[in-house]
Amino acid sequence: PPAVMQAMQRPMIYHRGATFRGFFKGLLKQLERVHQTEGSVLVLPGTGSAGWEIALVNTLSPGDQVLAVVAGDFGERWARVAERFGLRVSRVEVPWGRAATIEVVRPALEANPDVKAVLYTYNETSTGVANPLPEVGELVRQHGGLLLVDGVSAVAGMPLEMDSWGVDLIFSGSQKAWMCPPGLVIVGVGPRAWAAGERAGFPRAFWDLREYREQAGTGDMPSTAPLTLLYALQAACDLIEAEGLEQVFARHRALAELVRTGAIRLGYRLLADPAFASPTVTALLPPDGLEADTVVQELRARHGIEVNGGQGRLRGKILRVGHMGWVHEPELHRLLAALEDVTGALRGKR
Amino acid sequence: PPAVMQAMQRPMIYHRGATFRGFFKGLLKQLERVHQTEGSVLVLPGTGSAGWEIALVNTLSPGDQVLAVVAGDFGERWARVAERFGLRVSRVEVPWGRAATIEVVRPALEANPDVKAVLYTYNETSTGVANPLPEVGELVRQHGGLLLVDGVSAVAGMPLEMDSWGVDLIFSGSQKAWMCPPGLVIVGVGPRAWAAGERAGFPRAFWDLREYREQAGTGDMPSTAPLTLLYALQAACDLIEAEGLEQVFARHRALAELVRTGAIRLGYRLLADPAFASPTVTALLPPDGLEADTVVQELRARHGIEVNGGQGRLRGKILRVGHMGWVHEPELHRLLAALEDVTGALRGKR
Repeated sequence: PPAVMQAMQRPMIYHRGATFRGFFKGLLKQLERVHQTEGSVLVLPGTGSAGWEIALVNTLSPGDQVLAVVAGDFGERWARVAERFGLRVSRVEVPWGRAATIEVVRPALEANPDVKAVLYTYNETSTGVANPLPEVGELVRQHGGLLLVDGVSAVAGMPLEMDSWGVDLIFSGSQKAWMCPPGLVIVGVGPRAWAAGERAGFPRAFWDLREYREQAGTGDMPSTAPLTLLYALQAACDLIEAEGLEQVFARHRALAELVRTGAIRLGYRLLADPAFASPTVTALLPPDGLEADTVVQELRARHGIEVNGGQGRLRGKILRVGHMGWVHEPELHRLLAALEDVTGALRGKR
Repeated sequence: PPAVMQAMQRPMIYHRGATFRGFFKGLLKQLERVHQTEGSVLVLPGTGSAGWEIALVNTLSPGDQVLAVVAGDFGERWARVAERFGLRVSRVEVPWGRAATIEVVRPALEANPDVKAVLYTYNETSTGVANPLPEVGELVRQHGGLLLVDGVSAVAGMPLEMDSWGVDLIFSGSQKAWMCPPGLVIVGVGPRAWAAGERAGFPRAFWDLREYREQAGTGDMPSTAPLTLLYALQAACDLIEAEGLEQVFARHRALAELVRTGAIRLGYRLLADPAFASPTVTALLPPDGLEADTVVQELRARHGIEVNGGQGRLRGKILRVGHMGWVHEPELHRLLAALEDVTGALRGKR
């Protein structure tokens, strides 16, 4: 958004001064409102992928058992990070494109009563599925254990009530629905996660959330604040609050519906179970006889439009359209017109 | 610098596309030239403080013995990070303000023959001391073990010949002599560090340099590239190469001399051993009867000029003037005039 880009040109201020402290405390309050939490929301330098290990090393100890709910490539990557860090990882595998519902999570929890934490992806970017976080939150609360959530392509674009849903920790990246350049991880932390952190045995320094919390009390960060990105994030929060959270979420739902309807009309099929289709990203299977990657290439070559292909085991099989953050109807209409052109041209060639 | 700020307004490009890859490969080549290395220089999202653990987890295993050369607050903080990560840390303590010379490092190395790595701070920002890295590099090569270097306030402002000096790993932060906003860690990695990395037992994911190296081969980054900051870093490299590395270093030396001479004339004393006074930051002891923090406050209140106070055990005892990156004579003359005004006013009050 122009307002976000302009915010990055604001003059540098001293990152240990009163001006910065007032600014930063205000930003954290805005972030708490978006997370709907009375707990802490912290900002760290990094990208969304750092969230996987931030969540683990701040709440767990090597050898702890965790349940990784894997319904796509990002869930799979989080599970692998957990294994690298020496956690005992039980996987719940969900067919890619289906949702990770309580029906699949409950039996896994019952079979693994010692689970210290559930690793759950709110919005699986690789499949375009929005998983039912509120229901899973309630389930995990009943069972016990922490609910750690990858919210990378969800937070600020999809509803989140961190406290009432029982989310213990959720992280997101500045470049997704936050509409900013990449470079910040935003982490919401609830009281159970803080309590677990007191017992957590992983060594940690740069990712130690306790230090970020302590410094946040005075409006500081443990190391040099990434000021331009924080300016951008504040401008984005201003935009979100001016539009209104409910309206932001409604806009995302409407834009997703627009993309789905338009693509289906052209012969594409949703990868996602329609009941759980994501409001922020749509994954499409091409019409029979068309190669997904060819569609991606032609959209770029003929129209200068970038969409993503599949990743992990979906490589070459789907195309993915992001419609989160600073996206509105006109550019999605242009995208659908381009998709119609490319699809027609490729079909004509067969 | 204006050119750096303008670079951040360049349009966002797709971070997995050919345009990005060409841009990023070119940037890495520029960084290699500044490091004077045939090895790899990698860029990670983060701040300079992340460098401490990036260096450790990529080259060592829990329980390894390391020698931490502590000559100031940043050296001390690195030693503490090493302890947190379960390394056996032997400290060489150097009085703050003195240099960590081979005379103090050699006996410590001889007393600790099993040392796997030496943790060394090239420029100790807290004391304004530039430590003799070339000599220590030669010493460590003779002894064996890795030389891991905190180059946060040094690289791009002070000479560095990574390969010929025997530096195995050195990290720096974008917001120091690189003249950029904070948010990037730049890490130079030599062949011995890579070899050690193959045996290193620390779990790592986001900080895994092997993944950054693998992705750099095709001009990619493992997670979303912090594009605006990379644009800024490229603009800074362009400025540095246009001025010429030798000229950049000479300018820093001249500016440091200007600050030292001016401050001494006003009755301030150098904290640093003059033979090792830093070209990028000067630490000053106030004239007798003046409080350092009062000088810092008055510079801000009367002149709007920000200088730093002391940190760690030097809190309240010194003021520190940074003169690295995009700094030139006129603003340092203004600083010295302001310091003269404040010093005179405070002396008059006594």
